[in-house]
Amino acid sequence: MISFEEALKIVLDNAQFLPHESVKLEDTAGRVLASDIYADRDMPPFDKSAVDGYALKREELGNPLRVVENIAAGYVPKNEIVSGTCSKIMTGAVIPAGADFVVMVEDTIEVNGFMDLKEKEEEFKKRNNICYKGEDISEGDLLLSRGTVISPAATAILASAGFSVVSVSKVPVVGIFSTGDEIVEPEVTLLPSQIRNSNGWQLRMQTLSTCSKVKYYGIVKDSPELLHAAVLKSIEECDITIITGGVSAGDFDYVPGIIKECGFNILFDKVSVQPGKPSTFAVKRADYNENKVIFALPGNPVSSLIQFEMLVKPYIIKSMGGNYLPLKLSLPAAEEFTRKNTERLSLVPIVINPDGTFSPVRYNGSAHIAAMAHADAIAEIPVGVKQILAGEKATIHIFR
Amino acid sequence: MISFEEALKIVLDNAQFLPHESVKLEDTAGRVLASDIYADRDMPPFDKSAVDGYALKREELGNPLRVVENIAAGYVPKNEIVSGTCSKIMTGAVIPAGADFVVMVEDTIEVNGFMDLKEKEEEFKKRNNICYKGEDISEGDLLLSRGTVISPAATAILASAGFSVVSVSKVPVVGIFSTGDEIVEPEVTLLPSQIRNSNGWQLRMQTLSTCSKVKYYGIVKDSPELLHAAVLKSIEECDITIITGGVSAGDFDYVPGIIKECGFNILFDKVSVQPGKPSTFAVKRADYNENKVIFALPGNPVSSLIQFEMLVKPYIIKSMGGNYLPLKLSLPAAEEFTRKNTERLSLVPIVINPDGTFSPVRYNGSAHIAAMAHADAIAEIPVGVKQILAGEKATIHIFR
Repeated sequence: MISFEEALKIVLDNAQFLPHESVKLEDTAGRVLASDIYADRDMPPFDKSAVDGYALKREELGNPLRVVENIAAGYVPKNEIVSGTCSKIMTGAVIPAGADFVVMVEDTIEVNGFMDLKEKEEEFKKRNNICYKGEDISEGDLLLSRGTVISPAATAILASAGFSVVSVSKVPVVGIFSTGDEIVEPEVTLLPSQIRNSNGWQLRMQTLSTCSKVKYYGIVKDSPELLHAAVLKSIEECDITIITGGVSAGDFDYVPGIIKECGFNILFDKVSVQPGKPSTFAVKRADYNENKVIFALPGNPVSSLIQFEMLVKPYIIKSMGGNYLPLKLSLPAAEEFTRKNTERLSLVPIVINPDGTFSPVRYNGSAHIAAMAHADAIAEIPVGVKQILAGEKATIHIFR
Repeated sequence: MISFEEALKIVLDNAQFLPHESVKLEDTAGRVLASDIYADRDMPPFDKSAVDGYALKREELGNPLRVVENIAAGYVPKNEIVSGTCSKIMTGAVIPAGADFVVMVEDTIEVNGFMDLKEKEEEFKKRNNICYKGEDISEGDLLLSRGTVISPAATAILASAGFSVVSVSKVPVVGIFSTGDEIVEPEVTLLPSQIRNSNGWQLRMQTLSTCSKVKYYGIVKDSPELLHAAVLKSIEECDITIITGGVSAGDFDYVPGIIKECGFNILFDKVSVQPGKPSTFAVKRADYNENKVIFALPGNPVSSLIQFEMLVKPYIIKSMGGNYLPLKLSLPAAEEFTRKNTERLSLVPIVINPDGTFSPVRYNGSAHIAAMAHADAIAEIPVGVKQILAGEKATIHIFR
């Protein structure tokens, strides 16, 4: 049985890189940049005023100064500041030649075309209220790296660098189906021995959150023929196939056998992690350098959710040329918690408290569907560790 | 000048609640639940096996037992377990009457229709591998509260409770425009005194992340007539209007005056926060109990981004009946950092380090567009505080 770290490495090492395409800036949310973005000009592009006020020579601050111009943002100043003069200036406007100081409008009075200070305070002299050309960004600076997942802040940078169309990776097509004779869709009237399909829906929504295109194939019965047909259809139509259920040691757990029959090489089928031990990853390497991959995840909803976030989502983002892992940090436990079996890495649903500690949520195990909906993150309990004491730090992963 | 907390309270107290609609489960990502969701059955709905194995009477563990049935998930057992017998059972299947224990298949051998243990170990007796009816959820339990923002985990719960169609709040229509004679769209060839519109795009993408419907009106020049017409059009067509720029103390900052001319009541126009001091919030209360609101945000991209996440997004989610604030926790600073002006609450872009400390990112001020793209979160420096020492805790807000 391999460790979770080894499993993640195998998954990422087998990423199939997708080709690029150009999309409009408004359609880039969550997409992955296909090229480095450099600044095409300094920012600010000129010495600019940080405030509304008057541009002048610092040495003349405190003298009444004749106002020679009103410089609006977006316009080029017409007059140089010479001794005895100043120009009114708006936030973001170009500092006129000859000026090296802007006094804030709130600290001034203007009478008969002359500006003077309200009070003769030295306090004003601390900051000159000028943002200098290139102080934030120099022309040629790397602004965003290839592989960046595009956030609203990245969109602002792309716009500021002149991109209304952006080169990004194509998104993968992800086929999803649930297996199990006991599973029915939510709208079906239940027999007492049946349970409703929750995993398929959860995986569908998790996959959509990565911008991937989802093909949802619904529920496939525990029949070798039907499962074989479903896998063939999904690998034909999709880059990535995610199957939930059918991967335990039961007599009707046909999934691993069928994956092999379809020509896939199973790279792992057991991971030393709890929940998620039967997580399975398989690759088919085609002649024309194109990988297809299958993730077969356990049928319990907490296992499936966590393994998607920790293994499948990093694969999807990597296939688009990006790097993604949940936000990882170390936080102290608010209270002691213990476990019985210490053989595997435990991933425990938790809430993060306002004081920066964490507490486990009520969690009965991997079938306890309500646990993750009330969790902020998961905490690691390493292999061999039975107990985390109150105040002791553990590694936390925040899904994002 | 009011505090940031007061500003947030005013914003939330003026939320206009939106009506409800029914949407398909696959379209609920990020939407806000309009009703409480209760369990319509116990979970598990029956005593079920947690593993693949053999169901038997615990007192007979260690005796060879005749296998009377193979119980698959989704089927009702036909035979009661009586002395000397057991049934093979799959993960998730119904425990047969008479059984009170399931031994894992890995620990057994089956020969000629009889099951026996591989080794006579007491270790097996620790867990009976049965999940009892109702141990995770009881029929009638509240599973999700009205106001929940629907995550993939919540989708799984909705599916498990039988919802293929879900009642959610309608989404607001949000009008966005940028103001400023110096601003041009990214595809336009720049004059030296111009800068590209980044805020409008950033706000558009931030607003889309809330599931709102966005009407993007582009750039409006600093002309009272054009601004008046733009505000009238947006408030006619939208529930919420977001304007960026034009709210400082400059001669061409017409926005506050126009908001008043359009019949809006400005509830605040200065907030004791840095960046974001000129953030403005205005409400027009119509006769038929319908509020329209305007947020006028500063023109600097860092101010605009942070004020959207801290003020506008909470309003949008509240208008859909939900509660949203960034994830708030307290973390120690990795290094000392200081500021000059202590009059306002500072919100500083930071990264969270793997050891659970935080470090400020390179940040020159509210026009420094690259800062937020490389930040994980923001840290608070309270009013009156000049310095956060290394190891000292500060309040962190993680946007999500």
